[in-house]
Amino acid sequence: MLTRHATQSLTEQLAERFAERIRARLLAPGTRLPSVRECARQQGVSAYTVVAAYDQLLAQGLVEARRQRGFFVRDLSTRAPVAEALSRTSTGASAAAASVLGESPLPSGSHVNAAALIRGMFHQASTKPQPGSGVLPPDWLETTFMPAAVRKVTSTRALQDSSLRYGDPMGDAELRRVLAQRLAAINITAVPQQIITTVGATHALDIVSRTLLKPGDPVMVEEPGWSVEFARLDALGMKILPVPRHADGPDLAVMQRYCEVHAPKLFVSVSVFHNPTGYCLTPGSAHRVLQLAAKHDFYVVEDDTYGHIAPEHATRLTVLDGLQRSIYVSGFAKILAPNWRVGFLVAPPRLVEPLLDTKLLATLTTPSLLEKALALCIEQGQLRRHAERVRTRLEAARVRSVKLAQQAGCNFAAEPAGLFGWVDTGVDTDVLAQRMLDQGYLLAPGALFHARRQPSTLMRINFATTQDAAFWKLLAQVLRDSR
Amino acid sequence: MLTRHATQSLTEQLAERFAERIRARLLAPGTRLPSVRECARQQGVSAYTVVAAYDQLLAQGLVEARRQRGFFVRDLSTRAPVAEALSRTSTGASAAAASVLGESPLPSGSHVNAAALIRGMFHQASTKPQPGSGVLPPDWLETTFMPAAVRKVTSTRALQDSSLRYGDPMGDAELRRVLAQRLAAINITAVPQQIITTVGATHALDIVSRTLLKPGDPVMVEEPGWSVEFARLDALGMKILPVPRHADGPDLAVMQRYCEVHAPKLFVSVSVFHNPTGYCLTPGSAHRVLQLAAKHDFYVVEDDTYGHIAPEHATRLTVLDGLQRSIYVSGFAKILAPNWRVGFLVAPPRLVEPLLDTKLLATLTTPSLLEKALALCIEQGQLRRHAERVRTRLEAARVRSVKLAQQAGCNFAAEPAGLFGWVDTGVDTDVLAQRMLDQGYLLAPGALFHARRQPSTLMRINFATTQDAAFWKLLAQVLRDSR
Repeated sequence: MLTRHATQSLTEQLAERFAERIRARLLAPGTRLPSVRECARQQGVSAYTVVAAYDQLLAQGLVEARRQRGFFVRDLSTRAPVAEALSRTSTGASAAAASVLGESPLPSGSHVNAAALIRGMFHQASTKPQPGSGVLPPDWLETTFMPAAVRKVTSTRALQDSSLRYGDPMGDAELRRVLAQRLAAINITAVPQQIITTVGATHALDIVSRTLLKPGDPVMVEEPGWSVEFARLDALGMKILPVPRHADGPDLAVMQRYCEVHAPKLFVSVSVFHNPTGYCLTPGSAHRVLQLAAKHDFYVVEDDTYGHIAPEHATRLTVLDGLQRSIYVSGFAKILAPNWRVGFLVAPPRLVEPLLDTKLLATLTTPSLLEKALALCIEQGQLRRHAERVRTRLEAARVRSVKLAQQAGCNFAAEPAGLFGWVDTGVDTDVLAQRMLDQGYLLAPGALFHARRQPSTLMRINFATTQDAAFWKLLAQVLRDSR
Repeated sequence: MLTRHATQSLTEQLAERFAERIRARLLAPGTRLPSVRECARQQGVSAYTVVAAYDQLLAQGLVEARRQRGFFVRDLSTRAPVAEALSRTSTGASAAAASVLGESPLPSGSHVNAAALIRGMFHQASTKPQPGSGVLPPDWLETTFMPAAVRKVTSTRALQDSSLRYGDPMGDAELRRVLAQRLAAINITAVPQQIITTVGATHALDIVSRTLLKPGDPVMVEEPGWSVEFARLDALGMKILPVPRHADGPDLAVMQRYCEVHAPKLFVSVSVFHNPTGYCLTPGSAHRVLQLAAKHDFYVVEDDTYGHIAPEHATRLTVLDGLQRSIYVSGFAKILAPNWRVGFLVAPPRLVEPLLDTKLLATLTTPSLLEKALALCIEQGQLRRHAERVRTRLEAARVRSVKLAQQAGCNFAAEPAGLFGWVDTGVDTDVLAQRMLDQGYLLAPGALFHARRQPSTLMRINFATTQDAAFWKLLAQVLRDSR
């Protein structure tokens, strides 16, 4: 919050706050700053202070003034392909004319600013719990078995064995062996020779896209969905076909039409505890998706990142399919150690070689050390028991968060389940996010989960980080203020 | 070697040996197996044994018979984009009609089977030192300071700090700080905010290509060169323009013509101890490359993977350019720990954001743990002193290897320097490689360093792993046999 007793003037503080958000992309290029009057009211300062602060931003080249319209965030990045893909917004007239959702592919360049969300994930807004966070708080992940496992694999001898020569390009053999066993528990039958380790699930999804698609290929992705997926496919030059995600699964009628018109090559799906809705695929829907895949000859990649906190019997496409035309992807960022960046993919035997080639071209191999430590955590059953404890704790957190959210005047757009809640606030969550950031809370506004940037009153909350009554009290106040 | 006392018949042993190489891609798809008579002679078995072995391979679907022409290795992989890129050979008629080197871009799909080399790097042919290896032997990399550094960063507290939340997307701050200092020693002036860590230098080059190029863009790459670079650019859909590499630098006349005709967006270069020739760029050549870059507005990415074993004053494009239109890439696989997979890139300030976005889309972040350990190794000067020792040891090894190679009847196509020797054997090194593999030695035949697969009498040797007189004696014998 701005303070009158600081060494910086109020103007400097206000300018600095905007500058920081623009640089961190928490204010996306093209975003309009609040009007002078509105900003003065929000911050409890004079209009003169706001004008002076906006002038500083103008002088720093961070914003531009548009006649009669106000101040807009400038695009700071070079016009490189990825920068373009990440910074595009569809506020302009051309994007407003974008095709009707679910009927035709998303024109390249009309999708959301994913950088805002992914940069936000790494932005330490304050020491408060962060409602928009995509991972569990560190104290939920603290265990004694993880450091013990690391100690075992870092004896001088073990370390030299796992460091001084390239490891198996497929990934550590022991990890792949225990992963195969663990997969059997969720009814995925795979041998270690079908498993390739990656730098987190993100890298696995990247490898799959690069292997199965060539630039220009049409690919179906669930919407709402994880915006990194939209941004990556767009940066790779793919034609994105957004498929509305419902409670029971993807919209099959839309998929059917895409198949008839565009012949997509791949469908990217989160079956279990879908991000951001928390939806779980029903068996009937899974069956029909696979029927479509067989009839129209496309692959399915199933991102099971949230599988650790799901019941073992949850419906997965790869289980029904028996890994015939589907690829399973998961990681350990949501349950053990986000920064170990260990993920993996499981593929039909005929796809293993080309997928491995892509891994080799992208990173050669992955570091064995943490893969070996992870193998120990899994093998001794410690990770499974830890996941059970997290599941129980998350259930309690969810009950509490849901109650607080409803008391604050929010409604759930999807039945609360899993790690995330998909919450309707009734106000534009892009604006709400800026207001809450003033108070040190980072939100995940709904606009960030759409393939095309569009105003949204929804936001994604993390049940583990929204148990704080103070946060909801503040949110309720801002909501009352905004309506 | 085949043995008559084994539990397997000679036929089974022979079939199994070919099968293994085909699966490991040490025999590339499209390769012709030796004639029955030739194979019988080489292996010291009857023609009947060879015919029976080839029949087994045929039955297993690993080879195909072509009327009047013999047996050819089948392509086992799915026809996915990368698999195609990796398995193409230009033995066919269409590829034979490929454009003249240095005059027009390489038609997509006509380049080399990079997988053979990169898979070979991970193939443990035997316990003997491997002449074709791209890295120093593990015993050259053994140090006491590396395990000590790891111990420091794996205390329970340190471990939880570096594991349980996503790290800085740019990479560990401490590592970037010490890298900036280290770069100053080779006259590269960069602040930590210009440095992004990656999963080895390979990942850095991948990020640069994906950020600065879009599919179809023309890109200049040195030839001979590291085939992973050719294969990656091809898989990403880029138009590859091979630039002949000479002793003083790239062929400027060819670059000039490319610029006039194709307007390339990027030039990928290894200035110091170029792979596979060992050439070092001269200051004059560097200056002219940068003049071309300025005139024709292309970027330069300089892969300085071998910089650790080079003198500090070696000429680097990024030093002359002052990181204006150039990006510096390096890693630690050649000097500390190949399997840590820590690399980095240093970019002009305006490119940092888009490059970071690509990293986020590809892997989110990189693991902090090994980055922190590496920072300790660098900061305390231990890595620098270790590199000096390696340099001295490599010089002695080079003298010995060169002498042995010449005694074996080989000539150096490039003045011996750095880690690799570029050796002319006088015979087709693809054939030679298969013969030497029979004896447990993995070679790196010259064909693998060309953008377009073509027969070559050259091979790349690693000076650290070719000090064994027995290897050269055997090679001399096979050479006499083949001429």
